Amino acid sequence: MREVAVIGVGLTKFGEQWDISFREMLLEAGIRAIEDAGIDGKQLDALYVGNMSAGQFVKQEHIASLIADNAGLTPIAATRVEAACASGGLAFRQAVIAVASGHHDFVVAAGIEKMTDLLTAGVTGALATAADQEWEVYQGATFPALYALMARRHMHEFGTTEEQLAMVAVKNHSNACLNPYAQYHTKITVEQVLKSPPVAKPLKLLDCSPITDGAACVILAPAEKARRFTDTPILVAGTGQASDTISLHSRQTLTGLMATVEAARAAYKMAGMGPKDVDLAEVHDCFTIAEIMAIEDLGFCKKGKGGQLTEEGETALGGKIPINTSGGLKGKGHPVGATGIAQVVEIVTQLRGEAGKRQVDGAEIGLAHNVGGSGGTAVVHVLRRMD
Amino acid sequence: MREVAVIGVGLTKFGEQWDISFREMLLEAGIRAIEDAGIDGKQLDALYVGNMSAGQFVKQEHIASLIADNAGLTPIAATRVEAACASGGLAFRQAVIAVASGHHDFVVAAGIEKMTDLLTAGVTGALATAADQEWEVYQGATFPALYALMARRHMHEFGTTEEQLAMVAVKNHSNACLNPYAQYHTKITVEQVLKSPPVAKPLKLLDCSPITDGAACVILAPAEKARRFTDTPILVAGTGQASDTISLHSRQTLTGLMATVEAARAAYKMAGMGPKDVDLAEVHDCFTIAEIMAIEDLGFCKKGKGGQLTEEGETALGGKIPINTSGGLKGKGHPVGATGIAQVVEIVTQLRGEAGKRQVDGAEIGLAHNVGGSGGTAVVHVLRRMD
Repeated sequence: MREVAVIGVGLTKFGEQWDISFREMLLEAGIRAIEDAGIDGKQLDALYVGNMSAGQFVKQEHIASLIADNAGLTPIAATRVEAACASGGLAFRQAVIAVASGHHDFVVAAGIEKMTDLLTAGVTGALATAADQEWEVYQGATFPALYALMARRHMHEFGTTEEQLAMVAVKNHSNACLNPYAQYHTKITVEQVLKSPPVAKPLKLLDCSPITDGAACVILAPAEKARRFTDTPILVAGTGQASDTISLHSRQTLTGLMATVEAARAAYKMAGMGPKDVDLAEVHDCFTIAEIMAIEDLGFCKKGKGGQLTEEGETALGGKIPINTSGGLKGKGHPVGATGIAQVVEIVTQLRGEAGKRQVDGAEIGLAHNVGGSGGTAVVHVLRRMD
Repeated sequence: MREVAVIGVGLTKFGEQWDISFREMLLEAGIRAIEDAGIDGKQLDALYVGNMSAGQFVKQEHIASLIADNAGLTPIAATRVEAACASGGLAFRQAVIAVASGHHDFVVAAGIEKMTDLLTAGVTGALATAADQEWEVYQGATFPALYALMARRHMHEFGTTEEQLAMVAVKNHSNACLNPYAQYHTKITVEQVLKSPPVAKPLKLLDCSPITDGAACVILAPAEKARRFTDTPILVAGTGQASDTISLHSRQTLTGLMATVEAARAAYKMAGMGPKDVDLAEVHDCFTIAEIMAIEDLGFCKKGKGGQLTEEGETALGGKIPINTSGGLKGKGHPVGATGIAQVVEIVTQLRGEAGKRQVDGAEIGLAHNVGGSGGTAVVHVLRRMD
């Protein structure tokens, strides 16, 4: 199995993108990644695109062909990968496997979602198709409701507070202010979060990630060829993926995601590392409770201590384990199919030392954690500088 | 790169499946494949599902998690792959790459589509999302119209006749009568095809593949471990995938699919074989003209001679190169995401010598050819007996 490295990254601005089409968005991110890698488009030999639901959002399936066509990359092998909000993370993983196998050398892993072309109710309905249609959605459960169930149980078992949930949002908005690509450049306070309109108790509007348009792109290469393109290739040291029951009612626990635990175990094992080796992480904070569960499930603290770790400031910039320096899904925005790729872009940017005002000093090892639905899918990647 | 073999296959009956749900359909095909391989479900470590548009057809995305859950396979790594009607073929290819890479050993490649829960107009609209939404669908082009353009050009350039198109449907219905899993067990005549209602001139109703529910499943293993499970493992000797412009107006030609030509070139090269080595093929006959173009693009005859080869009976059972012994998309049915996997199931069944009345005597090498949209994606696999 060959080692694989990231040699280029690119993003669009995240937010409401009314003046650019679906196909143009990914082209913008792709051109940035290609220029960043200094690679010729003709050298690329495969493309993986993470996208949750262009069929519902913009009435377009078969988007890998569309993207290859619009980017002038035909006859490149072009494949769309879907696992709800983990589509991007899985696209990245398929690209890693394709390079590792020797089937392809230079591979694009991209992610895109254009969500604001629909009205909000339509978006919520489309996103709900990531839950179990027969056992959850038919009963009226949307994603805020499902994560609210997990939040209530976490509060009941471990004494996690609404203030601690709010602190996740406050931190991530603060980080987003330092990220030019983020949707929100607005600092918020704990009081503002607590007073924001209720969505599904105890989750309030400012506990929820927004609806976002955006695209992200990375270029992968065999590690032994990576230095032809960049002085700071970033090695994909570990990759892990796991599934769990798609609906909550069959789970052993509501206070964590077993898919995250399993995916992390596999990624750490492959990397020969553990959570203590990680300098920073991008985790899947679709709701504030999701970040608290994630930092526990990934091993950055004991189960039940995520709220406390957040309150103590250890997940902020300058803390023991900075989480979501990009602003996370909450502050940077959450174009669902793009999120998993955008997380990798942030980790690569940090490990290169190019993150500007949000730079984590001396970052050598980073982790990206992407979740589909309420935890039916999770994927974890451990990246490190090649020195 | 490790060699990869198929050790088990399974299908559901193709057709209108009103009494079984989406999730149950794939379970049925999966259990057959697992029993066929004689493998324990606990040994499986990854699942790839080809599906075009469950989001539109049954309001369910995130289906790889759903399938893993419903099959009791969690925490298996579960990934959905989409490329319109080539979704199954690409899922198979990702599974092959995953085993080849060493990341996974025993991998399920499955395909599913449940299309008849929508009214026909809804299905046609959903399928149209595989074409270019802005440049084709918005103008009113549906898939019969796009393939009709190709048919007219093929007739104009090469003298292909409506009777020759009809002969494809007649042959495939005849083959389907010998396949217990096929949607249609009805022989038809050239006259019946010619007199069937027009859909998009020159294509008539009986030139078009039907709307179908169905699921298909294969189990892959590293070739060196395959004989633990079966006496007749089937080697994946070659795999090739290519893209082309998603819309027809940018193509260099309308009388063939360049994506098929490129994918075949890659698959033949990897297999160290050419079209003359192939004993039988399953090709993507979504419309009769598509089979004629495919047998040319795959090299079984010269460009323009596909109609003649069909008329001479060389693509029928007993001919020089039997095509679509399963009944093809036309006779067996076309549950779009399942088709690419079902093609592999037929080739494996033939190479094992288990195809009953439709058996091709002494078949050693077979080819599966799956197309997305009007040729924006094509994927070709060459399989052979391991002796």
